[in-house]
Amino acid sequence: MDAEILSVGTELLLGTTANTDAQDISRALAELGINVFWHTVVGDNPARLTECVIRARNRADLIITTGGLGPTCDDITKQVLARTFERELVFHEDAAEGIKAIFEQRGMPFTENNLRQAWLPEGCTVLHNDCGTAPGCLFSDDQVTVIMLPGPPRECRAMLEKSVVPYLRRRSRFTIRSHMIRMFGIGESGMETKLRDLMNGSNPTVAPYAKTGECLVRVTARGTDEAGCEALMAPTMREILQRMGDVVYGVDVDSLEQRVLQLLTEKGLTLATAESCTGGLVSQRVTAIPGASAAFKGGVNVYTEEAKTRLLDIDPEFIAANGVVSMGVAGKMARRVRKVLKADLGVGITGWAGPDGDDVGLVFVGIAAKGECYVRRLQLAGMDRERIRTVAAHNAFDMLRRYLTGLDV
Amino acid sequence: MDAEILSVGTELLLGTTANTDAQDISRALAELGINVFWHTVVGDNPARLTECVIRARNRADLIITTGGLGPTCDDITKQVLARTFERELVFHEDAAEGIKAIFEQRGMPFTENNLRQAWLPEGCTVLHNDCGTAPGCLFSDDQVTVIMLPGPPRECRAMLEKSVVPYLRRRSRFTIRSHMIRMFGIGESGMETKLRDLMNGSNPTVAPYAKTGECLVRVTARGTDEAGCEALMAPTMREILQRMGDVVYGVDVDSLEQRVLQLLTEKGLTLATAESCTGGLVSQRVTAIPGASAAFKGGVNVYTEEAKTRLLDIDPEFIAANGVVSMGVAGKMARRVRKVLKADLGVGITGWAGPDGDDVGLVFVGIAAKGECYVRRLQLAGMDRERIRTVAAHNAFDMLRRYLTGLDV
Repeated sequence: MDAEILSVGTELLLGTTANTDAQDISRALAELGINVFWHTVVGDNPARLTECVIRARNRADLIITTGGLGPTCDDITKQVLARTFERELVFHEDAAEGIKAIFEQRGMPFTENNLRQAWLPEGCTVLHNDCGTAPGCLFSDDQVTVIMLPGPPRECRAMLEKSVVPYLRRRSRFTIRSHMIRMFGIGESGMETKLRDLMNGSNPTVAPYAKTGECLVRVTARGTDEAGCEALMAPTMREILQRMGDVVYGVDVDSLEQRVLQLLTEKGLTLATAESCTGGLVSQRVTAIPGASAAFKGGVNVYTEEAKTRLLDIDPEFIAANGVVSMGVAGKMARRVRKVLKADLGVGITGWAGPDGDDVGLVFVGIAAKGECYVRRLQLAGMDRERIRTVAAHNAFDMLRRYLTGLDV
Repeated sequence: MDAEILSVGTELLLGTTANTDAQDISRALAELGINVFWHTVVGDNPARLTECVIRARNRADLIITTGGLGPTCDDITKQVLARTFERELVFHEDAAEGIKAIFEQRGMPFTENNLRQAWLPEGCTVLHNDCGTAPGCLFSDDQVTVIMLPGPPRECRAMLEKSVVPYLRRRSRFTIRSHMIRMFGIGESGMETKLRDLMNGSNPTVAPYAKTGECLVRVTARGTDEAGCEALMAPTMREILQRMGDVVYGVDVDSLEQRVLQLLTEKGLTLATAESCTGGLVSQRVTAIPGASAAFKGGVNVYTEEAKTRLLDIDPEFIAANGVVSMGVAGKMARRVRKVLKADLGVGITGWAGPDGDDVGLVFVGIAAKGECYVRRLQLAGMDRERIRTVAAHNAFDMLRRYLTGLDV
């Protein structure tokens, strides 16, 4: 099956947003073994969109559109697709119910123009939108399947996962399975050097991904059933895990913080955080995970020296003697917050995130357990504020992960 | 001038990376008043790329390509563009010098295959790459200007800023100016209902944008100079601001939190936060902004009842009597954290972010100042955990913004 992704929205052509929808869809289709040969972005312009749709109809079996399904007059996708595929737009009662339900659920005043979103091509399957008001839809003729998804990335991603991937999987002759191996503590080129020979295979495939400060490798196999796929992947998985060693923090986990929360929950341990330059980022990332309350006691964002003294009772003289960004202060923050919140483990982070200052990028990350305290000194000069904060938080989670699995911190 | 962006790279079609190059280029062109009507992404396939280039040549005055300039055999962009525009690839001595210089600068061993990157279309202007080895280039014929940029985002962005924008500015007849009006407290369709008649103009244009929980409107004018653009926009800007009233939180600001930080800094006031269900999100968003330390004292992430008692000295009986998610507890959190951290303003947030529980989506957001305390009750049922937390944090910033500008909270 050959697919084309058509993204509709002037905001993409103005550069206001990146086309992450096309990326999300492409990744999902790649995992299903569907080829994507083209991405096209076009503005909210019926003539140009029509031109794109006709071209896509002639060269693809599957057309996925994003954007232009909302209630405003800019939202032209449905009209153009319906006309090109010679279908009427008809009012879909179930879509209207879904739209009204979202407004009710959120206690928002309902305006009639929202019902424009319930006009969809006749004979289509309505895809309900759990995260917004615009429903998506899908329909097929003899040659081509058309799937229309909303533009806001959260809505697009949710509909993709809930409706589109299961639909395409049912239609596929193949079963595709994949595993994501996640690493922290090695660079992308270092990882590629170690795994390059494995990246030339075709079944399974081994593909590297880069994420701020992390490395990911996806192993994907195509077979007739799940067990066959797993058998195809097993030797490669073993080989990668063996070569990469303890920089691997998890397989098929979402993130470092998820792995840490898993480990804490398994062991019945609790965590507390004391953050300065990260300002709550570690805490925010832990609590973004459902069920964090089982292991997370809370934290303090001690952005000023005064806050470090008031909330953690760290002696101002100790801060003055060590410097506020120091191994001593990071360690003390970790130990004190652990005590104050009666947690098993504490985290302390202090650093210069910039953009101004002499030592931008110098960060100390500490973790404390009963009778133990470890501090990493990070030199992240050259990174911007956001990246410094992200990498500092990554390191806190990595230290916890290593401590909790008995590795050297 | 009408532009088309052609991005070449199989990694984009596999979803390994988002097409941020197209976004960066689009944003730069928008600021120069150059229309971008199409983005196309195509793989490392000469036939399909040729098809794209021919189509672009027929409909655009400016073609900007990204990717495919490197030394490997996958890198086909130059060959295809040169052939389509009937130019030979010739060895450019100055490009070769630039490539050698980069290797020397980085102390990397130089290999001859890198000189393949110095073969560029005859008569082109070489664009030196300060961040990588592949030079870019530009050339024009009577009809079309072609600019080829490297794919890695850092290299693309640097070349864009250093070479492409100055080149295009010299050639442009127009100046473009735009303003972004940002609102909180109204939905996209509500905003559209109020502004629909203004959205049909062509100069200035008025375009709506949606972001989680926020509404944005961009007003853009094209003129011969900056003052002319501003004069064109002024009546529309006035009209929009007047119609939308105090849901507008800023013009040309980045975010609610940036506006709050501006207001705090202007007034010399300080802030402290106490977060439960948002777990540090408010604090993290404030401290993501450079210079936050001028106004942000710190915060506590009191994720458990025990933490609320330990860090904020809230009586467990008070919590039991009110319920941990209650107007009383949110208000008390805001007042207590303000006192504990000796800040002028305090924020307190408590709620059920889900996914499990009976009251998921019920959130109380409080702010406290000396002798004053305000609490909003939010009903966000139907949203997922991430969105509940985001909208709760938005509300905290909106309440602060309204308080600091003398509006009803």
